[in-house]
Amino acid sequence: MEIIGEKINATRKNIENAIRERDASFIQDLVRKQAEAGANYLDVNSGMPLYPEEEADDFAWLVPLIQEVADIPICIDSAYPLVIETALKLHQGRAMINSVNGDPKSMESIFPLAKQYECKVIALTSSREAGIPSNSTGRLKVAEKIAKEAQHHGIPLENIYFDPLVLPLSTDHKNAAVFLETLREIKASLAPARTISGLSNISYGLPKRKRVNHAFFVLAVECGMDAAILDPTDREIMAMVPVTELLMGKDPDCAEYLIAYREGRFNI
Amino acid sequence: MEIIGEKINATRKNIENAIRERDASFIQDLVRKQAEAGANYLDVNSGMPLYPEEEADDFAWLVPLIQEVADIPICIDSAYPLVIETALKLHQGRAMINSVNGDPKSMESIFPLAKQYECKVIALTSSREAGIPSNSTGRLKVAEKIAKEAQHHGIPLENIYFDPLVLPLSTDHKNAAVFLETLREIKASLAPARTISGLSNISYGLPKRKRVNHAFFVLAVECGMDAAILDPTDREIMAMVPVTELLMGKDPDCAEYLIAYREGRFNI
Repeated sequence: MEIIGEKINATRKNIENAIRERDASFIQDLVRKQAEAGANYLDVNSGMPLYPEEEADDFAWLVPLIQEVADIPICIDSAYPLVIETALKLHQGRAMINSVNGDPKSMESIFPLAKQYECKVIALTSSREAGIPSNSTGRLKVAEKIAKEAQHHGIPLENIYFDPLVLPLSTDHKNAAVFLETLREIKASLAPARTISGLSNISYGLPKRKRVNHAFFVLAVECGMDAAILDPTDREIMAMVPVTELLMGKDPDCAEYLIAYREGRFNI
Repeated sequence: MEIIGEKINATRKNIENAIRERDASFIQDLVRKQAEAGANYLDVNSGMPLYPEEEADDFAWLVPLIQEVADIPICIDSAYPLVIETALKLHQGRAMINSVNGDPKSMESIFPLAKQYECKVIALTSSREAGIPSNSTGRLKVAEKIAKEAQHHGIPLENIYFDPLVLPLSTDHKNAAVFLETLREIKASLAPARTISGLSNISYGLPKRKRVNHAFFVLAVECGMDAAILDPTDREIMAMVPVTELLMGKDPDCAEYLIAYREGRFNI
């Protein structure tokens, strides 16, 4: 299971302020905390500046700043190819791009960058044309189109992380089932492509969200989720990782589980 | 999801004492608590008296005692046909028998009773000949044999609750995966037969058992478990029921989940 730390995201006010004010120690503290908690990538989203040039400036400041304190690749979370390219030029090691979707325009601008920099790419199973299809068949169709186009650009499928898109249960009680079905189908028909998700949207609008999120995490892993975008400093959700891998039969001698226990990772 | 309350089990010392001393109020208190907590059946196991006749006496005392305070069927948990028959004669409504297995002798003694009293029957996917098969194929084979024999006795498959048998992860890290695979295969090939399990054995010998048990519950429901033998007064595990059913797409408008929330069932 790969963990993409979600905390450097300027849609949260205090992060936005830190980026605008170039508060290096605030950002580097978030980097260290997520790296220590076990993140394999750090998602970086600088919010929505008025101009892409401004967002590119943010990334030009953020990328070296982050890599100065942790040897951990960045997941470049931006809508603009200009921003992504700026970040990739400065990035050490293989970055991840967040994200491409099924629009021809999106694929035409992102895939050449992904090819040139040998990146991994998060691919959303949506497009302007199809929207977010309401069933797994529709989402799989978008994924297949993206997979074909990626291969056409010479990008190996194992570098594509499909995100089947989580919509809240509060708007449709079938949303978790559709997501899990899509995960299963992508794994069955597009391997070695990988799967990824930010899961917490599932419980939006419901009370006691954590219970729903934790159980959803377990089910998503069982259905083939390879990576998750989450807060790695949330010890409760991180404790679900060794538990779930143990239950999937992936932990010989329960070794990883027992290490997690001895390190106190279950003492929450 | 059907819940079989597990608390009236004389392998626990205080229950054994209450049965030996015919402490009616102690037993009836356990009945009330489990019924109020949402049990659909109450498992009753009077321990291991030296003679079946003694165990039959226990049940002759227990069955009317239990049914006096709660209108809830009993799951008669005994190895002896004599005991089961004694209980069935006194039981009001349709009981459940715990259990039959793949041995011809077991089926020949249990199925006629199940037919006569129109009972439900828990069927273990093991036999003296096969033991507990180490893989799902072997367990499914035992289940198929039991299903065939049940139908031969005129017992409809929906009255059979297959228990794919949980062995601890601490003895083999594949034990959860084999169990879940067996669950899936039974549901796929023996429907409308049902499935049942006492799940907690999975974490035997491990630290922090609850985390493992809760995640295992979620996975088992996803793989098709219809009923669980557990402690219904354990509010944490009971809270997993509405959460999991919501995530399976079985709770329109999140109605049951919101009722559970409003009733304070998540305030643990």
